[in-house]
Amino acid sequence: MDFAFTDEQLAIREAVSRYGAERLAPGYMQREKTGFEPGLIQEMGGLGYIAPEMPEDMGGAGLDAVTAGLIVEEIARHDFNVSYVQLMGSLCATILTRHAQPDLAREVVGQICRGEALVGLGLTEPGGGSDAANLKLRATRRGDVYVLKGEKASASFAAHMHKIVVFARTGSQEDRAKGISAFLVDMDSPGISRLPYDDLGTRAVGRGSVFFDDVEVPAGRMLGDENRGFGQVMAGFDYSRGLIGLQCLGAARASLEETWAYVTEREAFGRPLAKFQGVTEPLAEFETLLEACRLLCFKTLWLRDRGLPHTSEAAMVKWWAPKLAFDVIHQCLITNGHYGYSTDLPHQQRLRDVLGLQIGDGTAQIQKMIIAREKVGRVAVPYA
Amino acid sequence: MDFAFTDEQLAIREAVSRYGAERLAPGYMQREKTGFEPGLIQEMGGLGYIAPEMPEDMGGAGLDAVTAGLIVEEIARHDFNVSYVQLMGSLCATILTRHAQPDLAREVVGQICRGEALVGLGLTEPGGGSDAANLKLRATRRGDVYVLKGEKASASFAAHMHKIVVFARTGSQEDRAKGISAFLVDMDSPGISRLPYDDLGTRAVGRGSVFFDDVEVPAGRMLGDENRGFGQVMAGFDYSRGLIGLQCLGAARASLEETWAYVTEREAFGRPLAKFQGVTEPLAEFETLLEACRLLCFKTLWLRDRGLPHTSEAAMVKWWAPKLAFDVIHQCLITNGHYGYSTDLPHQQRLRDVLGLQIGDGTAQIQKMIIAREKVGRVAVPYA
Amino acid sequence: MDFAFTDEQLAIREAVSRYGAERLAPGYMQREKTGFEPGLIQEMGGLGYIAPEMPEDMGGAGLDAVTAGLIVEEIARHDFNVSYVQLMGSLCATILTRHAQPDLAREVVGQICRGEALVGLGLTEPGGGSDAANLKLRATRRGDVYVLKGEKASASFAAHMHKIVVFARTGSQEDRAKGISAFLVDMDSPGISRLPYDDLGTRAVGRGSVFFDDVEVPAGRMLGDENRGFGQVMAGFDYSRGLIGLQCLGAARASLEETWAYVTEREAFGRPLAKFQGVTEPLAEFETLLEACRLLCFKTLWLRDRGLPHTSEAAMVKWWAPKLAFDVIHQCLITNGHYGYSTDLPHQQRLRDVLGLQIGDGTAQIQKMIIAREKVGRVAVPYA
Amino acid sequence: MDFAFTDEQLAIREAVSRYGAERLAPGYMQREKTGFEPGLIQEMGGLGYIAPEMPEDMGGAGLDAVTAGLIVEEIARHDFNVSYVQLMGSLCATILTRHAQPDLAREVVGQICRGEALVGLGLTEPGGGSDAANLKLRATRRGDVYVLKGEKASASFAAHMHKIVVFARTGSQEDRAKGISAFLVDMDSPGISRLPYDDLGTRAVGRGSVFFDDVEVPAGRMLGDENRGFGQVMAGFDYSRGLIGLQCLGAARASLEETWAYVTEREAFGRPLAKFQGVTEPLAEFETLLEACRLLCFKTLWLRDRGLPHTSEAAMVKWWAPKLAFDVIHQCLITNGHYGYSTDLPHQQRLRDVLGLQIGDGTAQIQKMIIAREKVGRVAVPYA
Repeated sequence: MDFAFTDEQLAIREAVSRYGAERLAPGYMQREKTGFEPGLIQEMGGLGYIAPEMPEDMGGAGLDAVTAGLIVEEIARHDFNVSYVQLMGSLCATILTRHAQPDLAREVVGQICRGEALVGLGLTEPGGGSDAANLKLRATRRGDVYVLKGEKASASFAAHMHKIVVFARTGSQEDRAKGISAFLVDMDSPGISRLPYDDLGTRAVGRGSVFFDDVEVPAGRMLGDENRGFGQVMAGFDYSRGLIGLQCLGAARASLEETWAYVTEREAFGRPLAKFQGVTEPLAEFETLLEACRLLCFKTLWLRDRGLPHTSEAAMVKWWAPKLAFDVIHQCLITNGHYGYSTDLPHQQRLRDVLGLQIGDGTAQIQKMIIAREKVGRVAVPYA
Repeated sequence: MDFAFTDEQLAIREAVSRYGAERLAPGYMQREKTGFEPGLIQEMGGLGYIAPEMPEDMGGAGLDAVTAGLIVEEIARHDFNVSYVQLMGSLCATILTRHAQPDLAREVVGQICRGEALVGLGLTEPGGGSDAANLKLRATRRGDVYVLKGEKASASFAAHMHKIVVFARTGSQEDRAKGISAFLVDMDSPGISRLPYDDLGTRAVGRGSVFFDDVEVPAGRMLGDENRGFGQVMAGFDYSRGLIGLQCLGAARASLEETWAYVTEREAFGRPLAKFQGVTEPLAEFETLLEACRLLCFKTLWLRDRGLPHTSEAAMVKWWAPKLAFDVIHQCLITNGHYGYSTDLPHQQRLRDVLGLQIGDGTAQIQKMIIAREKVGRVAVPYA
Repeated sequence: MDFAFTDEQLAIREAVSRYGAERLAPGYMQREKTGFEPGLIQEMGGLGYIAPEMPEDMGGAGLDAVTAGLIVEEIARHDFNVSYVQLMGSLCATILTRHAQPDLAREVVGQICRGEALVGLGLTEPGGGSDAANLKLRATRRGDVYVLKGEKASASFAAHMHKIVVFARTGSQEDRAKGISAFLVDMDSPGISRLPYDDLGTRAVGRGSVFFDDVEVPAGRMLGDENRGFGQVMAGFDYSRGLIGLQCLGAARASLEETWAYVTEREAFGRPLAKFQGVTEPLAEFETLLEACRLLCFKTLWLRDRGLPHTSEAAMVKWWAPKLAFDVIHQCLITNGHYGYSTDLPHQQRLRDVLGLQIGDGTAQIQKMIIAREKVGRVAVPYA
Repeated sequence: MDFAFTDEQLAIREAVSRYGAERLAPGYMQREKTGFEPGLIQEMGGLGYIAPEMPEDMGGAGLDAVTAGLIVEEIARHDFNVSYVQLMGSLCATILTRHAQPDLAREVVGQICRGEALVGLGLTEPGGGSDAANLKLRATRRGDVYVLKGEKASASFAAHMHKIVVFARTGSQEDRAKGISAFLVDMDSPGISRLPYDDLGTRAVGRGSVFFDDVEVPAGRMLGDENRGFGQVMAGFDYSRGLIGLQCLGAARASLEETWAYVTEREAFGRPLAKFQGVTEPLAEFETLLEACRLLCFKTLWLRDRGLPHTSEAAMVKWWAPKLAFDVIHQCLITNGHYGYSTDLPHQQRLRDVLGLQIGDGTAQIQKMIIAREKVGRVAVPYA
């Protein structure tokens, strides 16, 4: 076993940390109101921070998943929303690399890595949620194109994305997961419209519905095989769950560090708050859990680097890390007292932002079911 | 023992519930942006919902504390922020009745009850927080007046209140709690300025700082005895803690009811969400805890009605009810899935609103210290 | 609302408390090894402490359920196992009063109340557990008798009971709950044998299997109607769940009181343990939860006294009180440090004893399902 | 980073696992009653399982700490009490290697490794507990010997150990930690007597008091420097805390595996228990936490192997792993229902056994204080 990062990894983390402190953290709360400033995403792309695990000949930095995890954690420490750019980039670039036609993959992955294209994901539907395989958006073959009709809900970057990986039904409804194909669609295709949501958090990213009203997609833009897109493409989610874990823990780490500083300086009853066990014990407990959960995230990514199965570990960090991060930030917020409740401090925004990931990308119930299923088989799937 | 409300209490609750559903709930989320609509507070006053435990000859409804609890719970179910009007009204009217000169008390309590005057509280200071007795705002006797100089922080209704009950140091700093007096001050007095905060929640109420720059207050506006104001006036807080508990539980109850309905109607995997124990078990647990915590709140108020000590019970509900309400609403929000995270549903606002009461009016650590002290004496006070 | 006990109730509690301190507490840990001393149960019967809610003409004390709750709580404070005598007495006497033929009821209930007969319950079967309605023990009508064949598992007082209320299948297996009848059977009937278990706790009570090898029971000993025994008799369980709650809380209360005393006296780092928030905060939290859970138990019993539905409340206290009591005693044990782990102190026995009630009389999952079902209907019953 | 064990480590684990399954697990519950069978400890010594991190020329197996952790985890899976032999062996052999005179170290460490000598630890005193530095047992220099007088409490292996590392006061009481020296004392020295305790668990190990009535110890048996023994020797505890973590998690793992099997096979309501989310969700949550905590334990040991500071990590696993193991086993016990409560299954013994380590070797409060102190310095030490 080796729990050390390599010198190269540490150097990358150091660079990202510096970048985050200088360029990202100062604007974190402002971006909630005004969105990402022009050029920010390209700048990150230029630094190699988007989809950094893509090979260099695809436009990426050729890093391993563990290093990609270090980057997303460090970015999220400074601006949780900006880290979505890396997360979505990694997820979509991975999908395209594996399942798009080579030329298409090369072109779009390059755009992602350079920060020229935001690619989103269209999976969830209004009536769907956890039951993702029950989707209804229809793709009908008509000559050289598929015609898409239906609605996707709750897509990140809804207002800003340039392309979308969209899952559509090509088989019958009864086929469930086995009648679904995936497509890469330009968001400026005729027939597409967007409806941004007004959310509690993650506002700089934005979430919304995308409507497909007879949108034509060239058949060559299908990702993976017809009717098999669901299983093939979803496999990429195990990887992004490892990143999501570190993303959430990064935000929590920021709040925890700030709060340790606060309790050391702030006095009550004539002594620093840190002299009171009622104040420090919850922080010490969260130090423990954060450290342990972080190791589990990196183990997930390391398994991926090794090409080993990591579905169970991915599910573990997906249910735990967002919940833990929420709990940590909540504790930090109230430990900061009257200040913590004001928008002068970032705890309240982090609390709102990380909360989204207790819902998005699969609920806790789904993740726990996956863990149980990986352990004892389908006997652990209710009603199956 | 008798766990039943009287017919009169049930009738009052029914009336408040109807009023809340018709007049308050529809505007709950709007008021966060635009504040209380003109006339709303007077309307509530006209209905007898503000400081309802005041005797009728003072302008109140002459109700007992248990019934006041029913009212605040029912109002908070429909608009958590509006229930602050009742809460602050009850707290300040109680203080004035007990400690102001009779004519002054009669005049201002009547205004409170009729919804003509919002009276706030100036206790916390920037460097203070839990160590309330360490306050520094100075009141200096100069002939018939006291001159106030200093700053109060984190006062509810900062932007809107007409008068403020302010705690000021009249003795030396070393006297701590024994050198503090309380005053009733008009907020339009020369030398007063306000600085509203931008907070995570409770925005319709508003919170802010109040600055006193040589503000003259007639000596007759002192509440209680000189240098003894802290202990005398703080005694009223035990009562308001019972109300705060019900206020928070009312908001939580609203989210829980809406969520039961949601899981019954919404389907996943071909059946209602309610068929999944992973969905219903947390709700059933919270049903249990809400019911138990609610009984403890009413016991606190009942003890007050009987004139029995209730400091320990008040501290119990003060740390537990806001935390429990936050946890309930959090669970409800994520159970509502993608919808729960949007501002279309009120869970997110309730979450932000109730969170304020995990900080305001005394942290959890202070409440637990009070419980321990009431149990085994001052041996349980650290550093004392 | 009225949270006060009557003077009569307080006097009874005071008497039970004195009895418990003098007669029960000193032998609590000894009884685990040697069982109840001869005459103890009759003594309790003579004092009116067994099934005290039975009417006086049946041999009881004619008390209400709330007072019965006070008694069981106070007995369990001093000896958790002895309180089972009251619990099982109340449960079985209630069943017999409602469902046995009048003469039989009068005779046996009198014996129970006087402490002359221990009546147990035969419901659970080896393959059963939570799925109680799936029981297989067969009762076949043969002229004037029913012949019982099968096995009951996990029955309290297995080694000592004189009679047993046994549930048997009189209809088909597919009828589930609607093909079950209940009988009162003498434990010295030919064909009955017993197998005591070696358990973690509750050893003075004892638990075990009872085997029925063609046991003849007169038809007149059927309780309730044929094939309807399950539903009719189980209704009595709501009541006993209220008592179980107080039984567990009584044991927890004893540990908590002893621990408050310990942390006040014991010193570390030159001052009493009570000066450390890390020590007192968990105790203060448990004070809160114990007080709230206790109110919920008494509300359950009060509803029963009023003849109002209390299925949901009974389920609430059944899952929560045993868990809470276990958690409280666990915290007390470790707070007592090295002493707490030794058998010199009663915490370890209480921990083992109360744990049994997280399993017996229905698991937490079943109780939460009941709460959900009472709230939203059968939609909340999985697979139904 | 590398989360894989080496082939050699895996082979060792496999061998220990086989040994544990064949030789240890079958006698786990029996050993609680009759103690370790003769020859067992020597057998383990012969296999290299005791203090395996000792160099080969000292009699050890020359393994790293991570591998020692694998061994203790695997032994504790099969018999939690037997793993104390390794734990105490590692702790005491480490102390002796570092602080005893070379010849003495070589002799006794060899005996430990071969399973010929059980060496215990005498630190805690009756009035001591968490305040270990306040110890009173006196060592007075008299020519070539020190004379020890006083009492040690709560020592593991009290009845069986052959030697004891005892901490004694050689300076003044006011010197606290800076007036303490450590000695290696033969337990058959004149003046020593033992008093075994009757404990809730860990009974095969045994715990007890050791009384020193003018016991003469050659001066050459002092460990470390005079008056500096406390700090020097306690440094070894960071290492043993990493092992303790894995010891507890090993026991928890055993219960969890058995319970997954149980819920897969056992049916209720016509389907396996595993079909119910109320059953599987807690197990899936504990899978997550066990995996994460285990990584943290191994990281602690890896830091030690690298010679890096690991005081904070050791404190983290010391408070968390025993608590987590207790919670896991508790959940498993009740998930096994009526069977879980009987002594036929090992869950109840594991529950009692692991509970001891929530107390021994430092309470949770002490560990959290260490974490806070390592983070922000002495400002986090109350009353210091």
